Amino acid sequence: MKRNAFYAQSGGVTSVINATAASVILEAKKHKEIGKVYAGKYGILGALREELFDTSKESISALNSLFYRPGGIFGSCRFKLKDIDTDRKEYLRLIEVFKAHNIGYFFYNGGNDSADTAFKVSKMSEELGYPLTCIAIPKTVDNDLALTDCCPGFGSAAKYIATSTLEAALDVESMAESSTKVFILEVMGRHAGWMAASSALARNDNNSSPHIILLPEIIFEEKKFLNKVKEVVKKNSFCVIVASEGIKNSKNKFVAESDTKDAFGHVQLGGVAPKLASLISNKLNLKNHWAVADYLQRSGRHIASLTDLEHASAVGKKAVEYAVKGLNGVMPIIVRKKTKRYSWEIKPAPLSKIANIEKKLPASFISKDGFNVTPKAIKYLMPLIQGEAPSKFENGIPKLVKFNLILEKKKLPKWKL
Amino acid sequence: MKRNAFYAQSGGVTSVINATAASVILEAKKHKEIGKVYAGKYGILGALREELFDTSKESISALNSLFYRPGGIFGSCRFKLKDIDTDRKEYLRLIEVFKAHNIGYFFYNGGNDSADTAFKVSKMSEELGYPLTCIAIPKTVDNDLALTDCCPGFGSAAKYIATSTLEAALDVESMAESSTKVFILEVMGRHAGWMAASSALARNDNNSSPHIILLPEIIFEEKKFLNKVKEVVKKNSFCVIVASEGIKNSKNKFVAESDTKDAFGHVQLGGVAPKLASLISNKLNLKNHWAVADYLQRSGRHIASLTDLEHASAVGKKAVEYAVKGLNGVMPIIVRKKTKRYSWEIKPAPLSKIANIEKKLPASFISKDGFNVTPKAIKYLMPLIQGEAPSKFENGIPKLVKFNLILEKKKLPKWKL
Repeated sequence: MKRNAFYAQSGGVTSVINATAASVILEAKKHKEIGKVYAGKYGILGALREELFDTSKESISALNSLFYRPGGIFGSCRFKLKDIDTDRKEYLRLIEVFKAHNIGYFFYNGGNDSADTAFKVSKMSEELGYPLTCIAIPKTVDNDLALTDCCPGFGSAAKYIATSTLEAALDVESMAESSTKVFILEVMGRHAGWMAASSALARNDNNSSPHIILLPEIIFEEKKFLNKVKEVVKKNSFCVIVASEGIKNSKNKFVAESDTKDAFGHVQLGGVAPKLASLISNKLNLKNHWAVADYLQRSGRHIASLTDLEHASAVGKKAVEYAVKGLNGVMPIIVRKKTKRYSWEIKPAPLSKIANIEKKLPASFISKDGFNVTPKAIKYLMPLIQGEAPSKFENGIPKLVKFNLILEKKKLPKWKL
Repeated sequence: MKRNAFYAQSGGVTSVINATAASVILEAKKHKEIGKVYAGKYGILGALREELFDTSKESISALNSLFYRPGGIFGSCRFKLKDIDTDRKEYLRLIEVFKAHNIGYFFYNGGNDSADTAFKVSKMSEELGYPLTCIAIPKTVDNDLALTDCCPGFGSAAKYIATSTLEAALDVESMAESSTKVFILEVMGRHAGWMAASSALARNDNNSSPHIILLPEIIFEEKKFLNKVKEVVKKNSFCVIVASEGIKNSKNKFVAESDTKDAFGHVQLGGVAPKLASLISNKLNLKNHWAVADYLQRSGRHIASLTDLEHASAVGKKAVEYAVKGLNGVMPIIVRKKTKRYSWEIKPAPLSKIANIEKKLPASFISKDGFNVTPKAIKYLMPLIQGEAPSKFENGIPKLVKFNLILEKKKLPKWKL
């Protein structure tokens, strides 16, 4: 029996998450077991509210343009379902909506929170005797998912960071004699230093920047840091610093603490760079500049990594293949093969071993002084930014194709969150 | 008689200033009147200190790689010569160094400060009876030079800003339902709003961002701004703001004032975005994200505008042609032709009419409410970001070619600034 599929994006988007969406939708068209693919308007909220985009109303050329389009075309959300042990209402509603639209496949594209949700929905559907195949598809610029070698979205953010670090370093180098001596780039990565670490890929025979990498895995010590900056400027005439937004001091306080929290209760960060900048101005009296990449690093599709784009596409395609084969409660993960030249394959992994686990930078990836990464880290990171996959341009900017975004007619009474 | 040339970069570099350097050096090789081209180590400081790179020691392939390399390969500086009426020492030293190295051509690649310096050096050489042809070559991401239709470096920064605004807007749009509602991108442009204005090029049939552009030409009024943000979010569900670092309040104070000043006595700015962000958090209670592009926007060679690259190359080539023809005290400027399709040519303009003049955004380019630019502005800006001229990549990052950077032997006793 033909059953429909539901696809939703969750959490912060990446510059290649739409490539995964396109792969799911295009692959599903090849399988007679799957009817329509519905996409949730604003992720899982779309399922709860019964707001389902009918992707069959989009042209193939529009779907193909998604491989070049950052952001999340159907909308994403930061919304964590309630704890299933204390409140099952949301889970029951999901199953109700899926039932109403004959949805037999649930594809949830996100991070470890989403893997957890997909896992719970899968258990709930079993309990209720409603046949539902649940697949979580990896996505996160944070690169912090367990089991998978890397996460789609990360390679492109890493390429953005490495390229930007290199370009800015050349700028600072030329200005250092009489002007800016220190440049600070703040990057994302709340708890794991993968993105900050990737700035090390900017180095080559003709560039030694960044000189200092501040990782959230290492306690920030002001004095040690300032000494290091002084030492680098003395030796090198300028200093390029890449700092993770999530660095903490010895009191376990974020260096850039603000009071805003998101829906998951995470503290909203931002502002490490200006804090470090005033420290350097006040304590070392060195002229400095700082940049905060924020969303630019995770939406910078124009500088995407081809390898990352291929990963993002492959996990989407495999998710559908797994679903049709009847695999349930799994995630297609990226497995690095033991070849000399980088190669990879996609394999299924159980959600129970991915849900809610956060993979930090291993100690072997961090230099002894804590201000750098090791050759082992470089060896791991390097393949992930290889290859260019530039946007198509129109009128000087990335081309945007129009989408119809037609909602399926509701069949259920209105529901309140 | 064969005479040598001196080329120096001044002020903040751009992503295409090295293309101008390469054009000057490569064009000079074609003219028998010109011997070697010396490049100042750190700009004019190189002349004062007699630190002259011998560019004849660089391979043609290295010189050609400069068309793809951001930063200033020979170093730039923020150093303003003393007022010629009160202190002629620096000017006399320049002429002395030029004499010692048989330099008959002075190419100064910078903004309006540099045009002023080239103009004064030209007058000084006349007064001293030392034959010297002085040409200023335009360069500034600020796009604020008089007479020229636009400034090399600006088009690429504009393309970076338009592209980044578009990409981030797609990200915010997908997150807005349950997370970030407002995104603020801070861009450069101390006194003139050209860079902030160029974010309007991100708009097309499928994107209406940015919704608010804050220009330094318009007084920042907190209440009016907050009302506008509220209105946009209500209508549109999210709001993208692009703010110039140089916006001032009604008391003529920079919104992001800091106490640091550069060598020209200009206040060093940065930090408008976080100030606007806390305003929006505190007064409107809207979740927001902010980015500060800083050096990334002026060194983002990977997203350079082909048109800008062509401008930057053409002014370098023409500067040499003018010099050989005996034009003195001029700048090659970009003149927009009155054709339906954008076309341009290079013409010489007198430095006296460019020196120290700052071209702001004309009133006809700014919308009535002050939060936007007019169709006339778009018409002006649009051609400048056309065409892509991506970096060459190697190992996933822009390729850097090695330079020899060999200093000419000194002939004069050491000199102290």
